Amino acid sequence: MAAIKAHGSLISTATNRVLVILYEKELEFEFVSVDMSTGEHKKDHFLSLNPFGQVPAFEDGDLKLFESRAITKYVAYEYASKGTQLIHQDSKKMAITLVWMEVEAQQYDPVASKLVWELGIKPMLGMVTDKAIVEENEAKLAKVLDVYENRLAHSKYLGGDCFTLADLHHLPTLQYLLGTQSQKLFDSRPHVSAWVADITARPAWLKVQALRKKH
Amino acid sequence: MAAIKAHGSLISTATNRVLVILYEKELEFEFVSVDMSTGEHKKDHFLSLNPFGQVPAFEDGDLKLFESRAITKYVAYEYASKGTQLIHQDSKKMAITLVWMEVEAQQYDPVASKLVWELGIKPMLGMVTDKAIVEENEAKLAKVLDVYENRLAHSKYLGGDCFTLADLHHLPTLQYLLGTQSQKLFDSRPHVSAWVADITARPAWLKVQALRKKH
Ligand SMILES: N[C@@H](CCC(=O)N[C@@H](CS)C(=O)NCC(=O)O)C(=O)O
Ligand SMILES: N[C@@H](CCC(=O)N[C@@H](CS)C(=O)NCC(=O)O)C(=O)O
Repeated sequence: MAAIKAHGSLISTATNRVLVILYEKELEFEFVSVDMSTGEHKKDHFLSLNPFGQVPAFEDGDLKLFESRAITKYVAYEYASKGTQLIHQDSKKMAITLVWMEVEAQQYDPVASKLVWELGIKPMLGMVTDKAIVEENEAKLAKVLDVYENRLAHSKYLGGDCFTLADLHHLPTLQYLLGTQSQKLFDSRPHVSAWVADITARPAWLKVQALRKKH
Repeated sequence: MAAIKAHGSLISTATNRVLVILYEKELEFEFVSVDMSTGEHKKDHFLSLNPFGQVPAFEDGDLKLFESRAITKYVAYEYASKGTQLIHQDSKKMAITLVWMEVEAQQYDPVASKLVWELGIKPMLGMVTDKAIVEENEAKLAKVLDVYENRLAHSKYLGGDCFTLADLHHLPTLQYLLGTQSQKLFDSRPHVSAWVADITARPAWLKVQALRKKH
């Protein structure tokens, strides 16, 4: 039995955020599938892992965690010596990475997640996309990506000159949007577009995609 | 001239999040007031500090940061030996604190910020509160606070047995809501209510309030 267990659903962006870091860090883990279609995430067993009843949840031995970005931070620090280095030792460099991690969570994700729901998930569930919500959030995403374009003209990655948690946290929502009309917002910005191509081609991310196809 | 500069507005919750940590850490700093009423935060000088044109922004010598929660994390680690200890050295304890920091950012803040806007800021600006938005978000806040009540029945603070960043990040929005109809949601939950009384009475937080009254 693996010490590390990642509980979640392969169609969940937040679950994929945890899976990709486990592959980046080359850690052994057990993926425990949570069947959201039967509401397993709202049942007592799962609520004891995450009282908010959302995937993912995570175990490392006795330690139980939830919230994808808390899990990635724990893994990046606890397993600093394994796999890809996703944080900086230098405190000033790390401070800049922290800024862009917050940008992902506060500026990008609220907008991107609404688009993922409208353009990625709803069609999958046979639900009707709300065009007004798409329009409003594409306008907001365009503004965020203008800032990214400027940042990436001066820095290879958002968090600095190497791939860090700040980039990694974007992968799951980014991947969903690439298959939709919103892809144009990334494609039309050359530095953003090069960054997207770079990070979505990472072997760890391809492994997440492969796992998803297998299930 | 102080090495640390906190740029922002005293009515801004995100600015207050930075001010309270500077007082907790007993650091000398200069508060640089940004006049949002004249759109100073959208002008070139300020955009060079925060490309999203939002307060706060922060300087520590050459280092320029934005996003309040990135600033607090930097300060908590960089000045770990000064003032109140707001993080844990132990990685498992810190992982739990990280979870509740994410809960603040992902579960509590999106809801609390909408209520602050409708019930705290709009009346101040002579704008009309949208009752439907208040109702929807009070229902969501109640669910979040149910989880908090349960957590705080077993743990003195959200992040563990001592006051950490996880609690501190709540202060600015919490304070706004205490003066509004939403206060009942905190008052009706005994452990939440004791936690609110405890953290809002911290000397560092009272200093932020005093600074606000002085201006
Ligand atoms: N902030 C959380 C978000 C988790 C989340 O929203 N999970 C979704 C799937 S991506 C979920 O469980 N939705 C079901 C629900 O909210 O009831 C995280 O990053 O872990
Ligand atoms: N996530 C940001 C939020 C900053 C923010 O929303 N600031 C508000 C004041 S509390 C602001 O500058 N609003 C003006 C605007 O968005 O144009 C942080 O935590 O620093």
